[in-house]
Amino acid sequence: MNIVLLRENDWINANTVKLTDHRARHLITVLKVVANQTLRVGLINGDRGLGTVTQVSGEGVELEVALSDAPLHRHPTQLVLALPRPKMLRRVFRSVAEFGVAELHLIHSYRVEKSYWQTPHLNEDKVEMALTQGLERSGDTVLPRVIQHKRFKPFMEDVLPAISAETTLLIAHPGNSAPFEADTQRPTTLLIGPEGGFIDFEVNLAEAVGAQKVSLGARILSVDTAVCAALSRELS
Amino acid sequence: MNIVLLRENDWINANTVKLTDHRARHLITVLKVVANQTLRVGLINGDRGLGTVTQVSGEGVELEVALSDAPLHRHPTQLVLALPRPKMLRRVFRSVAEFGVAELHLIHSYRVEKSYWQTPHLNEDKVEMALTQGLERSGDTVLPRVIQHKRFKPFMEDVLPAISAETTLLIAHPGNSAPFEADTQRPTTLLIGPEGGFIDFEVNLAEAVGAQKVSLGARILSVDTAVCAALSRELS
Repeated sequence: MNIVLLRENDWINANTVKLTDHRARHLITVLKVVANQTLRVGLINGDRGLGTVTQVSGEGVELEVALSDAPLHRHPTQLVLALPRPKMLRRVFRSVAEFGVAELHLIHSYRVEKSYWQTPHLNEDKVEMALTQGLERSGDTVLPRVIQHKRFKPFMEDVLPAISAETTLLIAHPGNSAPFEADTQRPTTLLIGPEGGFIDFEVNLAEAVGAQKVSLGARILSVDTAVCAALSRELS
Repeated sequence: MNIVLLRENDWINANTVKLTDHRARHLITVLKVVANQTLRVGLINGDRGLGTVTQVSGEGVELEVALSDAPLHRHPTQLVLALPRPKMLRRVFRSVAEFGVAELHLIHSYRVEKSYWQTPHLNEDKVEMALTQGLERSGDTVLPRVIQHKRFKPFMEDVLPAISAETTLLIAHPGNSAPFEADTQRPTTLLIGPEGGFIDFEVNLAEAVGAQKVSLGARILSVDTAVCAALSRELS
């Protein structure tokens, strides 16, 4: 945990928060905090700063906080991802939050099993929990927006052109595509397919709305690794 | 599963393998294979090729196999990693196998808890199981060698110079280090620290044996993400 994430209702007065839930337990039992210790803290979807432990008791932990730093920069890539199988989903949420992605669009595609849309991992609270774990890893405070699109064609024809208008639009496609290079001049919208890849019809439709094919390398990568590989290209 | 991994004792005659374990169950219940279907197969630490299903029964699956393709290329990076906490370890094993790393050296360091060395995830069979899952993802056949070094200083002074002799030696260190760029001319040996990083003494020792500091980007990354980020730089 590289940051203690706070919510508005944690404040008990202007400068003091009181934590009584799993965060307090983690601070007490894992980090073994003591009075006067300082910790990195941040308001979810808000600023970052420092918290000084003022009290540790059976009831929880109190911190005096000063939020003086702006949120971290957003990652220049917005991701459009064919809904991965549920087992992968939590890891993907964690990664996009860890990398500071602003928007993750989950889309249907031919090789996505319809049943995947029913997974409890897509419930709002589960999504937020996984995203929060990612933020805690990288010390970020801003939750990525996760948007579900259960119909492929309307997404590609109506939504994608709108959300990608000011960006370089790319579709990850193995084979002889050009290697994916970070565009340092403008943000990227990157489409990543399901296990087994997008079908030709889908790739053609993406190309019809302006997407260029790019390769993430010669190896077949699992979806969570592909997400990490793509996002890490634009990190340095 | 992008490849069915075989072992020498799966062969029941010159060209036929018979699978009766979890692989057979996966083929029958998940992939729902039928006679005459072809699948990618490979011999662990050996060649790759195709298998044609000749029989599916309650006893298992028989395949006629022809191994005509050489193993995939090894990744140009050998990794030296401070032993991560057990929860991370399985993911790290899977990733290094997925990327085709030839050698993973796990080392002790100041911020590695000594108890981590006792985890069952370091048992040979558990290590191989996690590595195998990585190979199955990328269709690779070659198991990375995993070598444990429980004493930091002897590793740095005696082992590291030997194993990194023909490579560019780098140590990932956040801050103002130069960004990590893939060296296309020679292989890389990359040191990645534990959560919280290497301590100054350790970084200095690495520099004394010739390591250059590099940065994986401005964000703090968890160990498994850092491994993926580093390995994906040299992919394209």
